[in-house]
Amino acid sequence: MARALKHWGWGYEDEQPSPQELRDTAGFLTRHLGFGSADPERPVPLSDVLLPPPRLRPPESLSAFCSTDGYERALHAYGRSYRDIVRAFRGRFDHPPDVVAHPRDEGEVQAALDWAISAGAAVIPFGGGTSVVGGVEGAACENYAGVVTIDLKALDKVLEVDPVSLSARIQAGAIGPRLEEQLSQYGLTLRHFPQSFQFSTLGGWIATRAGGHFATIYTHIDDLVESVRALTPAGVWESRRLPSSGAGVSPDRMLIGSEGTLGVITEAWVRVRPRPIHRASAPVRFADFSAGAEAVRALSQSGLYPTNCRLIDAREAEVTGAGDGTHALLVLGFESADHDVERWMTMALECCADHGGTWERRGSGNRAGEAVGNWREAFLRAPYLRDVFIAIGVLSETFETAITWDRFPTFHEHVLGAVTSALRDVCGGAGTVTCRFTHTYPDGPALYYTVLAPARRGGELEQWAEIKRAASDAVIEGGGTITHHHAVGREHRPWYDRQRPEPFAAALAGAKAAIDPTGALNPGVLFDP
Amino acid sequence: MARALKHWGWGYEDEQPSPQELRDTAGFLTRHLGFGSADPERPVPLSDVLLPPPRLRPPESLSAFCSTDGYERALHAYGRSYRDIVRAFRGRFDHPPDVVAHPRDEGEVQAALDWAISAGAAVIPFGGGTSVVGGVEGAACENYAGVVTIDLKALDKVLEVDPVSLSARIQAGAIGPRLEEQLSQYGLTLRHFPQSFQFSTLGGWIATRAGGHFATIYTHIDDLVESVRALTPAGVWESRRLPSSGAGVSPDRMLIGSEGTLGVITEAWVRVRPRPIHRASAPVRFADFSAGAEAVRALSQSGLYPTNCRLIDAREAEVTGAGDGTHALLVLGFESADHDVERWMTMALECCADHGGTWERRGSGNRAGEAVGNWREAFLRAPYLRDVFIAIGVLSETFETAITWDRFPTFHEHVLGAVTSALRDVCGGAGTVTCRFTHTYPDGPALYYTVLAPARRGGELEQWAEIKRAASDAVIEGGGTITHHHAVGREHRPWYDRQRPEPFAAALAGAKAAIDPTGALNPGVLFDP
Repeated sequence: MARALKHWGWGYEDEQPSPQELRDTAGFLTRHLGFGSADPERPVPLSDVLLPPPRLRPPESLSAFCSTDGYERALHAYGRSYRDIVRAFRGRFDHPPDVVAHPRDEGEVQAALDWAISAGAAVIPFGGGTSVVGGVEGAACENYAGVVTIDLKALDKVLEVDPVSLSARIQAGAIGPRLEEQLSQYGLTLRHFPQSFQFSTLGGWIATRAGGHFATIYTHIDDLVESVRALTPAGVWESRRLPSSGAGVSPDRMLIGSEGTLGVITEAWVRVRPRPIHRASAPVRFADFSAGAEAVRALSQSGLYPTNCRLIDAREAEVTGAGDGTHALLVLGFESADHDVERWMTMALECCADHGGTWERRGSGNRAGEAVGNWREAFLRAPYLRDVFIAIGVLSETFETAITWDRFPTFHEHVLGAVTSALRDVCGGAGTVTCRFTHTYPDGPALYYTVLAPARRGGELEQWAEIKRAASDAVIEGGGTITHHHAVGREHRPWYDRQRPEPFAAALAGAKAAIDPTGALNPGVLFDP
Repeated sequence: MARALKHWGWGYEDEQPSPQELRDTAGFLTRHLGFGSADPERPVPLSDVLLPPPRLRPPESLSAFCSTDGYERALHAYGRSYRDIVRAFRGRFDHPPDVVAHPRDEGEVQAALDWAISAGAAVIPFGGGTSVVGGVEGAACENYAGVVTIDLKALDKVLEVDPVSLSARIQAGAIGPRLEEQLSQYGLTLRHFPQSFQFSTLGGWIATRAGGHFATIYTHIDDLVESVRALTPAGVWESRRLPSSGAGVSPDRMLIGSEGTLGVITEAWVRVRPRPIHRASAPVRFADFSAGAEAVRALSQSGLYPTNCRLIDAREAEVTGAGDGTHALLVLGFESADHDVERWMTMALECCADHGGTWERRGSGNRAGEAVGNWREAFLRAPYLRDVFIAIGVLSETFETAITWDRFPTFHEHVLGAVTSALRDVCGGAGTVTCRFTHTYPDGPALYYTVLAPARRGGELEQWAEIKRAASDAVIEGGGTITHHHAVGREHRPWYDRQRPEPFAAALAGAKAAIDPTGALNPGVLFDP
């Protein structure tokens, strides 16, 4: 039996903190932040939630894997953005799916898809449900007979491993730990570790162009995909396994980032690699974020290709326990399954020194520096912590983008200014906005902002909407992308529409209409319903 | 005044060999190959060619840059495949464009496009005209009022350089030497060197997903594109300048590889870099191609990322003067603008030694080994030589693909077998098919085959069609791609149609119909006219 997931937040039901642990954490966090309530609010229990009755019932032939059960509908009603968790925490489920399918093989995916389309329903492909952009919710489907969510998580097998080409054929519903566990039996790893790793799936990563472990070269799942297989209303879309191709427009690049609007991804061949055995890492201190940014720019233009190159501003380093708030921190690392990487590290540190970076110790082998370790732990703990933040009235959310280096300083200042100003308007001036680089390119960094602020209980959605609007406007006006790796979903649509070239929008709509004529697939995402 | 290009083959009219030089070369080549005629045939002079009369005349308002001149129409009638050159050599121009436009700015591109569409004409965007897949010819346009070819070469400026982000905004019509010359004034380089470099354009590279200088990581122009601007019948398609993005399906990846069917690319921001100052290279010998392939596989999975990693089989090494025919040769090289690369080279050579590779000397700085130099020179000379081959009755053509490592040995054997068998059938068993790796990936190599065989004068097109059919069938049946970097054009259509997923073909056709409703843009390429 699968462990039950928490219906309103992060993780499994059996790993939630006890009331006492929650109070202790609340006390610590409010002292640390200077705002929030030490008295955690309790979520509305699911037993008190009245869901709208399902508008559809699955036919008898699908009843073995389709359900209208309340817990299933609530669990699949939202992703895991701040907005989602607040709504679920408060027991507000306006648009849950009517039916949740848990197909156990591709035939059942096809059967669910066929039935849903014939019934006039909208179809939401669902992986880990960790979308932070409203990618999996059933809003705005009034013109459909109902909403059928197809949860792919039972398709979780590594089906085939090619140790010669270092590739593996993996089912789309495999969550991070499941696929890594199976690959590890071959001494291999995909090494795609988004923050949602514990719960998100390969298919979700591909559909949303997820960002992973590598700070350079293989930054997005896009770069690890060898071929994709998806079920569309017009038939099976399966590309050839190829190391690379130049045959016209790439079919894979049209599915990657399609966010469930063109088909249901069922499996993919991905590029895997032997587990690294050589490692070098160091936390490098910089007087401030801009000094660190100059070092990262030099590193990303050097051709050294560090595996980790995450620059964290002073305040964020402090909040996550990786620094004391007096300096920016660069988490720098190299790894290889093939060769010692100390030489690379030495050259990268020389580059940092040229830009005023200092460090006290270097880690190697499988040990990492303490600050690096602290930061990594905080990274994986963050989604759990957010549930606590919500309970104690702390607004906690992130947004991210990318920009070229020439525009970075002005852009960053503009975004910080806009968010700070919004925090003043909606949170009385308290709260922080911090920043880190998650990935880096020769022509610019990917910027990841974290907002922590005192929430007005019951008014969180409006508060966040205003902050998010200010941030997104600043990002789009400054020339950035509305998302580097969180996808568009329903929440980024207004800004995505400003970002994308008009003829491209028309072309993509033409592509969708050709293979999904009823517009069944994930309406509202990328396209209007 | 622009130098006049040769209307039937490679290069400028003023750099063609004299009759005596041609006879000397012919003598040398026929002795070297063991077939061909020492008495070169002469091309049909353009003055003897009767072109079909133009079906369209440009309006007065466009007459300053549009022409129906015979030389212009002949020059733009074909690309530069063997098939193209044979036809032009023999004075056969069945489907020349009716009008050739040479717009001097984007406004004139727009005017030409608008007029052509309103006149019911087909529009062929034209860069260097070096397509080897029938990408720019006016065949199968019977249902159009005529064919208007838009030659972009007057749009040849580097418009803007961003030395901070290492990017440059360049007009699509800039040929390789023109853009490198302008970038060199800033100490920068794009370093995209396809074999056609001397004559092909940035816009052509983007439209066809050209392969360039780098054997790893930045193998295709795709990886060097930061944003693209194109004129489409539905308006301007211009993406934002971004180091990376995860906002839905990539607009750039839909234009890249569209081969002129979605719009006329007018400019792009591309990723440039400082000119390399550290270099290391070595020719490494292997007993045979498969031993070399194992070394290249190990190298491409090592994370060392060599700049050059081209494995040449024994026969091809001999033909190009890089070897004596007894061994396969790996042209291995590293380069950097940032750091000494001797350490990388040492590790790569250790990897080669593990797989039986041997070498006598290593080059460094700006000197390269003699064998490496010979090979590079032969690489750039090849398109010129082909004109001579045609004159002396030697069939000379290439085809290329990519395959994963696990299937490589069987695939390669199958392809060689199919072509050898076709050579037996159509060339009496004489002739050679040789192979090199042009680019290499962790999951497989890009294979480039060269065919040299005795041609039957007047029967070359049929001979080559049969060989090409055998090769392409073998490539597609074996699971490869019909092209790694030569594009699809009109010549690869039958195999491309077998390769691409059906729903993708429908989606792409829907995308095209949405922005090019009259199907004016490059009919016959990727889609039916």
